[in-house]
Amino acid sequence: MQVGLIGLGKMGFNLGQNLLDHDHQVVAYDLNPNAVEDMNQLGAKATTNLTELVQNLETPRILWIMVPHTVVDSVLGELKPLLEKEDIVIDGGNSHYKESIRRYDEFKKLGIYYMDAGTSGGTSGARNGACYMIGGDQEAWDVVEPLFRDTAVENGYFYGGKRGVGHFMKMIHNGIEYGMMAAIGEGFEVLDKSEFELDYEKVAKVWNNGSVIRSWLMELTEHAFSQDPKLDAIKGVMHSSGEAKWTLETALDLQAATPIIAMSLLSRFRSLETDTFNGKVVAALRNEFGGHAVEKA
Amino acid sequence: MQVGLIGLGKMGFNLGQNLLDHDHQVVAYDLNPNAVEDMNQLGAKATTNLTELVQNLETPRILWIMVPHTVVDSVLGELKPLLEKEDIVIDGGNSHYKESIRRYDEFKKLGIYYMDAGTSGGTSGARNGACYMIGGDQEAWDVVEPLFRDTAVENGYFYGGKRGVGHFMKMIHNGIEYGMMAAIGEGFEVLDKSEFELDYEKVAKVWNNGSVIRSWLMELTEHAFSQDPKLDAIKGVMHSSGEAKWTLETALDLQAATPIIAMSLLSRFRSLETDTFNGKVVAALRNEFGGHAVEKA
Repeated sequence: MQVGLIGLGKMGFNLGQNLLDHDHQVVAYDLNPNAVEDMNQLGAKATTNLTELVQNLETPRILWIMVPHTVVDSVLGELKPLLEKEDIVIDGGNSHYKESIRRYDEFKKLGIYYMDAGTSGGTSGARNGACYMIGGDQEAWDVVEPLFRDTAVENGYFYGGKRGVGHFMKMIHNGIEYGMMAAIGEGFEVLDKSEFELDYEKVAKVWNNGSVIRSWLMELTEHAFSQDPKLDAIKGVMHSSGEAKWTLETALDLQAATPIIAMSLLSRFRSLETDTFNGKVVAALRNEFGGHAVEKA
Repeated sequence: MQVGLIGLGKMGFNLGQNLLDHDHQVVAYDLNPNAVEDMNQLGAKATTNLTELVQNLETPRILWIMVPHTVVDSVLGELKPLLEKEDIVIDGGNSHYKESIRRYDEFKKLGIYYMDAGTSGGTSGARNGACYMIGGDQEAWDVVEPLFRDTAVENGYFYGGKRGVGHFMKMIHNGIEYGMMAAIGEGFEVLDKSEFELDYEKVAKVWNNGSVIRSWLMELTEHAFSQDPKLDAIKGVMHSSGEAKWTLETALDLQAATPIIAMSLLSRFRSLETDTFNGKVVAALRNEFGGHAVEKA
């Protein structure tokens, strides 16, 4: 079926290839002419002009947006005057579920369907089989389901109904991901500080075969150690892209006690700094009351 | 090959079956006559008499102990006078690695090999293919490796060398397990407090297919929800059997910052209580300084 793909970045480009593999007609848009040309080489009809993209689509149109969440409103603002009733807009990026609910309401007023689709599995998933969590109206879902079925792994898509639930589930997924990753990191931290000299690739490998903690994240851990046995080439600076923060903010609003998700996020924040003001204050206080030594800056 | 299996509980009995499946000669011991009889029915030579077990083994003997870590010293105390130089003792249970190092040293003085084998994968793993982490002397490892290879899943055993490392790795594995489980639990906690009505079995299922958090633990989560959609039949009381506590104690000794593992263990402790003295103190203080309402006991 025909789909208008907006955004040919790492995720969008791979999704475009995945859609083409499954004989869907990909009409695409990106500001980057190189990505547009590459997509056209693969058999898509891509353009750097959003109006042209919309004109190239049969009505009712299906538009699948794969852009950073920070530019979704800007894309939607350009798109809105070009669309018609019964068109279907899918936000496949990592938007906050409350933003998706707001956008759903705005498009609802115009008679346009708005679906929120959380996408997991990384770039390889977008290319070869992703995992989707989807919210939005049933009538629209009945139309677009084949697109998700074809580009997901087997059993890798879930229509949760109510608008916002797709991005909500994706947000929770990311919160769990933060906690799992933090636990793995801490485990190897203790191993590394211990008396034992271990080959961490082999440790991760045995844990991936028959153990309770076998998981895709542990497989990625094994792969990382296979490339760099002690990860000497990188720093332990853990950036975050916002979804665990949203999970924690949501948990706070709902009064849900989530210390692990909170701590995994706060540990990432700590990792961004080589020294902290917090540390200076505590060191100064130890000195004040007990004369304990401080380290000079 | 011939192996003397000590302990026919959930893990030991399943391991015995697994060994028999792979044409090993199982000579077994347990105090429970029913377990002994059941094991004999399957083709083992089991007894309720430890001396008889030892007499039934050709020298040098291989003894594989699968008992709760709290009774390992008692079993070893009975066993020690019955053994001879060159015999090999394997502790396949969940002993503390420092206890395993102490026991290794004690047996070393007697010329007896002592190996520590952490076993993961639960009872189904013991039956059908476990995951092993093993420490101890190379000479002994060369003898017993086939027993581990045959009863593990493919690539599911790792000989780490130095005494103690098997139980150390198993301890770290359990620490990671605690953190992962806590993250999963918290994710569903937020889902459950949200406005969305979701079928948790389906949520776990989609997360097991193509997502970043796919894992054996999430598969177990899916299975648990398939049996009881809201887990109404059980309480959220999270017992613990000690290994995450050891991981945390080890992390403290090594000055390894492990807030996730710490918090996952402390959250379990909190779950054992319906009310806390901590809570009373804080509620009383809020009342003292601000006149905030307290709830009467």
